[in-house]
Parts: sequence; C-alpha cells; structure tokens
Amino acid sequence: MSHNSFGHLFRVTTWGESHGAAIGCVVDGCPPRIALTEADIQPYLDLRRPGASRFVTQRQEPDQVRILSGTFEGLTTGTPISLLIENQDQRSKDYGEIKDRFRPGHADLTYELKYGIRDYRGGGRSSARETAMRVAAGAVARKVLDGVTIRGALVQMGDDRIDRAAWDWAATAENEFWCPDRAAAARWEQRLLEARKSGSSLGAVIEVVAEGVPPGLGAPIYGKLDADIAAALMGINAVKGVEIGEGFAAAALTGEANADEMRMGPDGRVIFGDNHAGGVLGGISTGQPIVARFAVKPTSSILTPRRSVDRFGQEVEVLTRGRHDPCVGIRAVPVGEAMLALVLADHLLRHRAQNPDAPSEARLPRN
Amino acid sequence: MSHNSFGHLFRVTTWGESHGAAIGCVVDGCPPRIALTEADIQPYLDLRRPGASRFVTQRQEPDQVRILSGTFEGLTTGTPISLLIENQDQRSKDYGEIKDRFRPGHADLTYELKYGIRDYRGGGRSSARETAMRVAAGAVARKVLDGVTIRGALVQMGDDRIDRAAWDWAATAENEFWCPDRAAAARWEQRLLEARKSGSSLGAVIEVVAEGVPPGLGAPIYGKLDADIAAALMGINAVKGVEIGEGFAAAALTGEANADEMRMGPDGRVIFGDNHAGGVLGGISTGQPIVARFAVKPTSSILTPRRSVDRFGQEVEVLTRGRHDPCVGIRAVPVGEAMLALVLADHLLRHRAQNPDAPSEARLPRN
Amino acid sequence: MSHNSFGHLFRVTTWGESHGAAIGCVVDGCPPRIALTEADIQPYLDLRRPGASRFVTQRQEPDQVRILSGTFEGLTTGTPISLLIENQDQRSKDYGEIKDRFRPGHADLTYELKYGIRDYRGGGRSSARETAMRVAAGAVARKVLDGVTIRGALVQMGDDRIDRAAWDWAATAENEFWCPDRAAAARWEQRLLEARKSGSSLGAVIEVVAEGVPPGLGAPIYGKLDADIAAALMGINAVKGVEIGEGFAAAALTGEANADEMRMGPDGRVIFGDNHAGGVLGGISTGQPIVARFAVKPTSSILTPRRSVDRFGQEVEVLTRGRHDPCVGIRAVPVGEAMLALVLADHLLRHRAQNPDAPSEARLPRN
Amino acid sequence: MSHNSFGHLFRVTTWGESHGAAIGCVVDGCPPRIALTEADIQPYLDLRRPGASRFVTQRQEPDQVRILSGTFEGLTTGTPISLLIENQDQRSKDYGEIKDRFRPGHADLTYELKYGIRDYRGGGRSSARETAMRVAAGAVARKVLDGVTIRGALVQMGDDRIDRAAWDWAATAENEFWCPDRAAAARWEQRLLEARKSGSSLGAVIEVVAEGVPPGLGAPIYGKLDADIAAALMGINAVKGVEIGEGFAAAALTGEANADEMRMGPDGRVIFGDNHAGGVLGGISTGQPIVARFAVKPTSSILTPRRSVDRFGQEVEVLTRGRHDPCVGIRAVPVGEAMLALVLADHLLRHRAQNPDAPSEARLPRN
Repeated sequence: MSHNSFGHLFRVTTWGESHGAAIGCVVDGCPPRIALTEADIQPYLDLRRPGASRFVTQRQEPDQVRILSGTFEGLTTGTPISLLIENQDQRSKDYGEIKDRFRPGHADLTYELKYGIRDYRGGGRSSARETAMRVAAGAVARKVLDGVTIRGALVQMGDDRIDRAAWDWAATAENEFWCPDRAAAARWEQRLLEARKSGSSLGAVIEVVAEGVPPGLGAPIYGKLDADIAAALMGINAVKGVEIGEGFAAAALTGEANADEMRMGPDGRVIFGDNHAGGVLGGISTGQPIVARFAVKPTSSILTPRRSVDRFGQEVEVLTRGRHDPCVGIRAVPVGEAMLALVLADHLLRHRAQNPDAPSEARLPRN
Repeated sequence: MSHNSFGHLFRVTTWGESHGAAIGCVVDGCPPRIALTEADIQPYLDLRRPGASRFVTQRQEPDQVRILSGTFEGLTTGTPISLLIENQDQRSKDYGEIKDRFRPGHADLTYELKYGIRDYRGGGRSSARETAMRVAAGAVARKVLDGVTIRGALVQMGDDRIDRAAWDWAATAENEFWCPDRAAAARWEQRLLEARKSGSSLGAVIEVVAEGVPPGLGAPIYGKLDADIAAALMGINAVKGVEIGEGFAAAALTGEANADEMRMGPDGRVIFGDNHAGGVLGGISTGQPIVARFAVKPTSSILTPRRSVDRFGQEVEVLTRGRHDPCVGIRAVPVGEAMLALVLADHLLRHRAQNPDAPSEARLPRN
Repeated sequence: MSHNSFGHLFRVTTWGESHGAAIGCVVDGCPPRIALTEADIQPYLDLRRPGASRFVTQRQEPDQVRILSGTFEGLTTGTPISLLIENQDQRSKDYGEIKDRFRPGHADLTYELKYGIRDYRGGGRSSARETAMRVAAGAVARKVLDGVTIRGALVQMGDDRIDRAAWDWAATAENEFWCPDRAAAARWEQRLLEARKSGSSLGAVIEVVAEGVPPGLGAPIYGKLDADIAAALMGINAVKGVEIGEGFAAAALTGEANADEMRMGPDGRVIFGDNHAGGVLGGISTGQPIVARFAVKPTSSILTPRRSVDRFGQEVEVLTRGRHDPCVGIRAVPVGEAMLALVLADHLLRHRAQNPDAPSEARLPRN
Repeated sequence: MSHNSFGHLFRVTTWGESHGAAIGCVVDGCPPRIALTEADIQPYLDLRRPGASRFVTQRQEPDQVRILSGTFEGLTTGTPISLLIENQDQRSKDYGEIKDRFRPGHADLTYELKYGIRDYRGGGRSSARETAMRVAAGAVARKVLDGVTIRGALVQMGDDRIDRAAWDWAATAENEFWCPDRAAAARWEQRLLEARKSGSSLGAVIEVVAEGVPPGLGAPIYGKLDADIAAALMGINAVKGVEIGEGFAAAALTGEANADEMRMGPDGRVIFGDNHAGGVLGGISTGQPIVARFAVKPTSSILTPRRSVDRFGQEVEVLTRGRHDPCVGIRAVPVGEAMLALVLADHLLRHRAQNPDAPSEARLPRN
C-alpha cells in the first residue's frame, strides 16, 4: 500500500514537489519489448505544459522528460522505467506570504493538521505540477494499450455547456480549451478573459473517451473498472465529481430507457442500441467506448482577498498572487486522458493474468 | 491485489453468490479489544434486508449473521473476523429463462465475455445480494470509528429531488425511502407504485454524511480520501456517478464562491464558513462533515420486454420476471453508509501508522 | 495489505481459531473454468489430518471441507472460492491452565504483548490448525498448475538425516513420516517413540520439490520467486530456516563448483549439468525442478515442566498437557507442499500478466 | 503489487540498471518531521561502495546520493523521498562478450526466457549495483527505528566459520570482511587472495542482529516478522538460505532445549534464558534481539572458463572478465543490515496502525 502509487500490475509511483529540484515517477510492470523513447512521451507533456497559452499559468517549464532506466536500445525491458523532469522556473519568493497562512480551498490546512510540516512553496506536493508525471506515465500506458484511442474534451466551462450536436473532435485541437464545439469555444474565450480580469476563476467539466477497449476489463466487486476510473479521476487535483456514461442523469431515466438494448452485427459482434452504460456493465468493459466525465472546481488561487487563518491560530486575509490557471480544468484534460490510460493498462494486465484466453472483441458465441 | 477485497489496513474480502449456500466476508485488520457481537451487526442488516417493505424485492431472507472467528468473550482479538449468512429463499427456477440470455443493463454479457462461464441464478456474484456483507463489515467499521456518526438519505427519486430546506434526519426513519423530506416521501410513494404497476423502474440519488471525522485522513496523491470514497461508492451495484461536497455544481461556481473561508472558533478550532469542499481538501479530511452523493440507475430487471442477444449469438427478447426492487436505490442507502464507514476506518488506520501524533481535532496552533 | 492473506493474484485469506466454530479461507483470483469439487481438495486434507497416525496429535477432526462459493456445476467461475471446515473435537478444558501462563517457545507472550488479548484455547489463531486451510487452498493451486508435480519429504528428524542415495519417492507413502529413505524411517520410528515416552519432542527438516515448472516465474528484485518461497515456508508454524537448492552448503563451494553449467539438449532445450541453484537464477525459475528445504523446530508443547511467567508478571512453571505432535515437522510436509503450490500459482499469473507470450519451456532460441 | 517495491507502509521502490544513467529509489510512507539529509545516508553507502578495498570489485563509483524530494528544511514531510545516484564508471565494453552468452549461475538465461530482451551490460537490472539503493533506503529506515541498533557480521567464509566465543563487534570495523573474530579475519585474507589468484570465488554466511526492537512487531499468519525477514534476505543477490535464531540447528534440538524459558526481571521486564527463537515467536517480536543469518553463494563471475549456451541455442564457453567481487558476501553485509532495517520500519508502522496502544517494552502485566 502506497499513498503515492497508482495501479496494481501496471503501477506508477510519483514523487516530487512543485519547487523541488525535480519531479519524477517510476513505472513498474510495463511489458517488455515495447518501443519507447522520450519522443513517445514528450508530445503529451507539451500539451499539458505550463506557459503554453494565455489561459494557463505563465510559469515557464520546458518539461523535458528523461528516461533513466527500464529501456534498452529503444525497447522496454520489463524492468522499472524511471522518468524525470527537472524543475526550472521556481519563483519561490512568490509564496513567502502563504508560508504561515492557509489558502481557502487549498490543501494548506489539511497538510498542516496531518503532517505538522509542509513545503508551502507552490503547494509543494499538492501542486498540480505533479500531474506532469501522470501525463508522462500515461504516455507509456498508451503504448501498452495497442489499438485503443483515448481522447478528452472540455464540455462545460463555468455554467456554459457545449452543444453535443456540434461535437467535432477536430475542433479540440483548434482552440485553447480542448473544446469540441467551436461556438462554445468562442464564448469561453470571452468569459475567461473576464474572469481573469476580475481576479476570479472558473470551474469546468471534462469528458474522456476510450475507444477500442476490449471487453472483459474489470472485475465483479472491488476491482470494478468504473470504480477504478472513479478513483483515478477523483484523484486529480480539484476534482469534485465523476460520472460514467449517463452518470447522474441516469437517476431520472426509467429502467427501459436506461438499459442499452443489444443486437447482433453481421460479423458476430454484439451491437448496443445506445451507450447509457458508458462502456461498463457490472464493473466490466463491454467493448463499447468507455465514457467518463469529471467536474473540476474553479481555481482556489485567486486575486480576490479571502478570510482565513494562519498556523498560529490567528485570523488573516489571504490573497494568492503567484501565476495561476484561471480555469485549472483546461490543463486537466490531458491529465484525465492519462489517468484513464493508466487504469486501462492496469486492468488489461489484470484481466490477462486471470483470463489469458478471453476474446479481445465482443463476439458471440464466445470461443 | 484482490478483486474481491476492499481496503488496505482495515480490509474486507467478500465471497458468495446470490443463490449459493451462503455469503460471507472476512474482516482483517480490525484492532483488538473492541466489543463486538452479532447484535452490533444485525440491526444494519435488518435495515437493508430484502422483503422488509412493499418497495423492495419480496425475496424472504432473514439475513442472520454469524461471527465465526476473530472475537473472544465478546471482544475482537486482532485476528480476522469471519462473518457468514446462509442463503435461504433461492427460487432459482425463476432464472431458467435467462440461463442463456443476456439481460440489458446487467452484467450477464460481460461475465460471459470475461469468464466464459457464469452462475446465472439471480445474477450470481453480480447480484446486489453481495452488499449484505458490505453492510455487515460496515457495522464492524463503525465500531472502529468511535465518535463518528454516519448517516444516509435518498435525496432524489427519478427526477424528483427533495427540498433541502425541509431536511430532517428524523424523517428518514419514518418512511420506506430514507427520505429526509416528508413531502417528497409522499410524492415518491405514489410514483413508485405507478412505476411498479407499469413494469418499469426508477433511479435515485443518495447522500451519505459522516460527522465527527478527525482531520488528516487521506493522503496527497493516490491515497486521497475523496478518491477512495469515489471508488467505494462507484463500486456499489448500479451506481453511475459520485460527487463530493458541491460536486458537479462546483463547476458553475466562481473561485471566490467555492473556496470555503475559515475563521477561528473560541476554543482554537478552525471554523469553515461553508462546506463546498464536502470535508476534504487536497485529498485529506478537514474535520468538517464528509458529504458525498451517488446516483443509482433505475433497476434493469423490468417486466417490459427488451431486445437482446443470447450466448449463441441469436437475437432474442428478454423480460425479467424474478422478484426485484422497483427502485434499487432505496436499499443502496445502508450500503452507501457502510462503504463510507469502510473507507474511513481504513484511512484512520493508515493515518495513524504514519502520523501517530496527529491531532484528532482541527485546532490551531497544532501541537 | 493483509496479515492473513497470502499471494497477490492467486490470493488466499485464511481465518479461524483452533477452538472456534470453524476455520476457513477465501481463494481469490482463481482462473475460471477449472474443474473443482471437494473431491479435489479432501485427499490433501486427509494426509495432513490430526489423529491419522500414532505420531501426530490425537485430536479427532474429520476435516471435511465444503466449497461455499466460486464454483458452478463443478467448474470455477473466476469469483472467490470460499472453503470451510467445521471444528469438532475442541477439548478446550485442556487449556484452562495456560489461560494466564505463557508457554515457552509459543506465541502466548507475543500475542499478549501485541494485542492485550488472546484466545488461549489450543493456541487460538497461532495454532497449526490454521494450516489445514493452507493445504485446502494449495489443492486449488495445484489445479491451476497444470503439468506441475509438487512433492515433499522429511529428510531429517532430530539430528538424523536420510541417505540421499537411498531416496525413493515411493517410500514416502509407506511410512508415517514421508521419509524417502526406508532405513531412516525405521530408525525414526524408534526415536520418536522414545521422545514421546520421555515427554520430549524432535525437530525436522523437510524438502519440497516442484517439477514441470515453466521458466520465467519470478521477477528481478522484490518479486523474486525464491524470496517468496522463503517467506511462504518461513511462515509455516515453527519453521526457523529455509534453503533453496544448495542452500547454506553453497557458502562452502567455490564459484566453479556452484554455478551450474549448461548445454543444449537434442530438442533445443537447455540442459543443466547440476541443480545447485534449486531451479531459480536471479529470482526467476529456470525450468529445472524447484528445490527448497525448511527446518522445523521441535514442538514446544511438551510434558517436561518449564520455567515461565504469567500475565500478572509472576514466575510460574508450565507443563503442556493437551494432545500434541511429538514431531510437528511430520505434518508440515503437506503444508510445505501447499505453500509451494500457492507461490507458484501466484507467480504463474503474475508472469502471464506481464509476459503473455513467454515460452512455457526453456528452449533456445526463444521465439 | 510491484516487483520492484519492498514493504507495505514503509515502502521502497528501486529502479535502474548497472550501466544506465543512474540508479534510484522512492521511499514512500516515511513519517514526517524526521531529520534527514544526505549526510544521514552517505556513510552507509560508503561502507558498501565498490572499489573501497582490495577484496571487492574495482569499479570506481563515488556513489554520491542526492535527495530529490520529500524533505523540507532538513526534515521529512511525509511525502515520497526520491533518492538518486548517478552511475559513473560503466565500462560497458567489458560485457560485449556476454551479449549473447549466458553466464552460468547468473540471471542471463532466465531474463532471456522471461522477457526476450535484457540489458546485458554488467548484469543490467540483476546486478548487485541495485543494492546501493537498498542501503540508501535502509539508512532512512534506521531514522524511523529510533532506539534500534542494527549490525551485521560475516560469520563464515568458504567453509571457515568464526569462533563465536571470540566475537567482538569492534573487530568488524578493523578488517575488510566485517569479521567479528580477528583470528578468522586473518585466515580469510589469505584464502581470498588465493581464490582470486586462481580465478575462483568463495561463498559466505552473514549474521544480522537488531537490538532494541519493541515487542509486538509482526502478525500471526502471513504478515509474520520472520517470514518477511526471510523474503528480505533471500531477495538479496546470490543468497540461497536464511535462518532465524537457532535456524537449521533447531531441528537437532529437543523441545526442552530449544524453547527459551522466561523469568521476570526486577523492573517488570520479561527475561529469556536464551534466544534460540532469534527474537521472534509466532511471527511476532519478543523484545529480544532479532538474529538472522543468510548464506551467499560464491560469485558466479569467475575467470575459470565454463560450459554454457548462447541466445541462438549454440554451446559455448564462457569466462567472465569484468571487475568482480571474489566474495560477493562481503558487500552483502551492509545490504543485509539495510534489508533488516526496511522490514522492521515497515512492521513498526503496520503494528502501530492496528495497535496504537501496544507497549514498547516487554513488561508484565501489560497495561
């Protein structure tokens, strides 16, 4: 049991603080003989990188990842893969004023109460900076998930949702918000500029989708695929809610509207009439796309002064200067994709261990 | 790694199928010298029991629990506690017609694709019957959580939400729905009778609350309290969404509205202005009430015929007779409470292992 | 992490005390569609059973095992297998005199210091009775290990070792000691009668051998096959030493004498000149027989009075009446076999998860 | 489950190959507010360091450790501690001739069969170089084990054992073998020079002792302290046997000779007449010194040519040049100490989680 590891068979352990010398992770359990170099990982880090657009923190971090172990001549060897990124642009002096003060909505108070000590610089271990290593590890997981496509999109900013009829995956690469609805992206740009100007911040909802997932991933009771996805996404900084498929809206449907009917495709494949289930039934993947959503609260680091307390039990006012994301949900998109990749890679190995002969497609009759 | 175990230090392993000889669980890691007899567990089972009201399955199960190990002269000994309930009212013949057919919205297909075999009687391992053992184990967890009160309520049935202003915990014991709003309970009774009459079913949203939780439970990154709660609740049968505190609604708030301000109480306690966070910041408990909600889809076992497929790859029509809950969310209330208790008991032990001197209340300055 | 579970993917959790209502275990992770009934398990329990010969405890336990879950129509389903044995012949009054006294060489004192409570009747949880469930679970593991033969033999009783040149596996079934050397068996019978008559007891060394194990089981660093075998065997009651292959004698060999030379067999198989390694190199199986030995201390429950202390801090004399094994090593033979089976089944699944294409035989060139 | 992690609550994950860019580890679960800098770790690494004496490999590695995370202003913060050592003196060309050949007694063949790929340079992941990180992590564990002293000694080289009557801990610092018997050390120097001259190598037996360990560490069945020590020591490179206390010699004792009698000391402490048990009864520490021994086989890397096979299935002759330890057991002493420290730190936290009120000394009556 480790508080800083994720996964069981495909297992990632991250380490590092926002303003330490470096951040890194160890990926253990990766199968051998998979082609892997830094070039497989770097593009995903570049997408998450701070300083990359007007709408994210202006901290400048090149986030160049190095593979320190676990590969040989460009192939994985089955031994642990150590990844490392050096921290470069730590402006720790920005944080002097929160040394003894607890920012509302942050982990400052809870770290103090739990550990009696904290590296307050940039949030230390609780900083979203740690998610860079999730993205890096997620890139390795994608290599394990041959044939699986994992994508994410921002589907709500503040209270403004996209029009799902306008969904175009191509649009997500055209704007700075991973927004699949071009009209919504234009509205959001305006909103975000206003929020930043007023020293405020906005929340968001992200949807992540995995296509090409074989059936059978997951397990009946406490190794459920959806339960592990829920933990993975809820564990991202600032996330307060997670849904699979129809999610909370399922509560308002009738049983006959919600249960996805099945029929047979021409090639023996099971075809579902709809995907209210989000690709998971009884905790096990159906072969349909896995669909999950998560809600990210508005950044708590804002320029508006807030009432709070300090280490000595005094009431104080806190205002967070630093360089922050006005909508931290934006950079959570690649992180959500990465967490989904980590869950799926882990479950692929778990499934294979117990069921080596299980089919990779939802065909009937099963062999 | 076990697919049928929950928790790390306070660890529960359940076993059993809906129509097998018995169901049971092993609770490992319980501290010694805690008073524990069957009488501590049975009341919680009685609340979840099938056949107890008009609105739940009419299967008759006394659900009498036996403690087979781990206690001596009425006290826990620190060794594994084995709990067992014999199955009594298995009408397996009800299930002959789903032997080869996959019910929409059920785990029938995914079990077949994963394992190539399934105990189809009553859903086998995927039956909600397994949750009886979670409730039993949860009762043990409550004994470990001295000073903590865990309660649950149904806050939405179908698309009908309660009026939060009318919330009265006492009301939850007065109706058959754990509904804290008496007016809503009256409406729901009507709706549920109609749904059952028409061979349909309804979804629900449940809220669970833990009061008296010490600060410091949880851990920064992958041992987050909220992530573990999310997995625990999403792992309950038929659940499709989980929220902590403000949940999805947080996405629509501004940073200044969402971040809970703090001030000092007269006795050195930290007081929060609100509890948008749901008692968790940075994955660690704040000392405020833990508040979580989860959405349960409408029962997929309905009397309305549905299109589906069978084991041989033929298209068929399925209609689920059996004895089912028209709103399975009702019986999920004690299960949600139990899962929250299990997460908290586990985290209490985990916290204590690393931080034996941490304070049990949110007071400042910390010692 | 559970203190009462063994294995990771093929995972066994045992429960129960010597004089409780029953003992049992849950086997989780067993692959589906393996033929399994009580008849596959019972023969191994019969070999370990108390009361079966003059030289073991005279407690009469039929040890009839029941499968309560995890199989359907004679096949495993991939869900947890619950096994249960009822205790029958508990003569708890035998133990009244050790209620407050700590028997030398037993866990009485350490349980008291750790837990502050103990079920003293028959040793409670620390009784060798628990090993019945290891044997039962081991029988399930053997079913997973298709093509692997696991056998054990007593190779030393007291200071009397067998003549390895006289080794005949068939002999182990002919005497009451699992002794592969008929001449030694005759001597041991005499010694054991004398030991019992004088109220004393004898230690033993057991060798367990697994043939047909595929290469590749184990992992480089902390998932080493030999390390897990060491833990499995050292974890058997009363064991004080474990060896793999040449074991402690390897320390006295030169490098050239100890390192097993290799050559090619006619069919592309690697043939080893010798098996000093005991079938494991670098923590990974070579495809040769796995050979391990473990030393069992003489039974501490003896009729000779010994100096000790009691719960109140008083010095006392202790003499253990009860019904005990004069050489507990004898009944440890089937337990050692079972533990080896559990380790191998677990590692087979672990290996398969990461290396699904690895060959099942040591042939070169590897595909 | 990770193949490269050790421990549960005090958990170490190592990574790195002999000739990669660096080696490192992550220590997770360390309690907060413990003073820790590189200066606490470096001395232990210096003792294990290659090139430090005539009798170990002449590879020159300064082994300067860096702490990259998990501390703040000289104190641990409760977050993961990342340790890193850069590799400097990799003479990889030495290994060209074993690129395709399998050295007898090494992991070369088993890696090939398991993974189908290996970093052959210097043994890659299976090199003893990895043990530097165990020593580093062990130094952190020692800081957690306040009041516990852990020491090791070489008690046998080849077939030459020390005279236990001559044991003097001070002597271990005076010779290059950690030999507590000065006369034996003189003999061993001669033997080792001869072994090296003849291109041969010698095995060894190491004893590690922990004093000041509180009672209660460990757990009844599969979380036994001695089982975990056995796994920890057997998992060190080249180890073939492990003993606790009397070890294999216990098999030849009678029950009355082996079971350690107890009496009361003047201050309420339990005093044992002897320590045949090696400080562990029923898998739980007694409060006496923990005593364990392990046998290290003679280095398999020798200058004497040996018959073997290559990747292509051809028979070849292998002779290992490189720079090797003529008796790899020597450098295993600090590694054995470190592994014992890791086991004890982990069990201390595990014990505390379940039994926060357990006494730290073996006094009766227990509170």
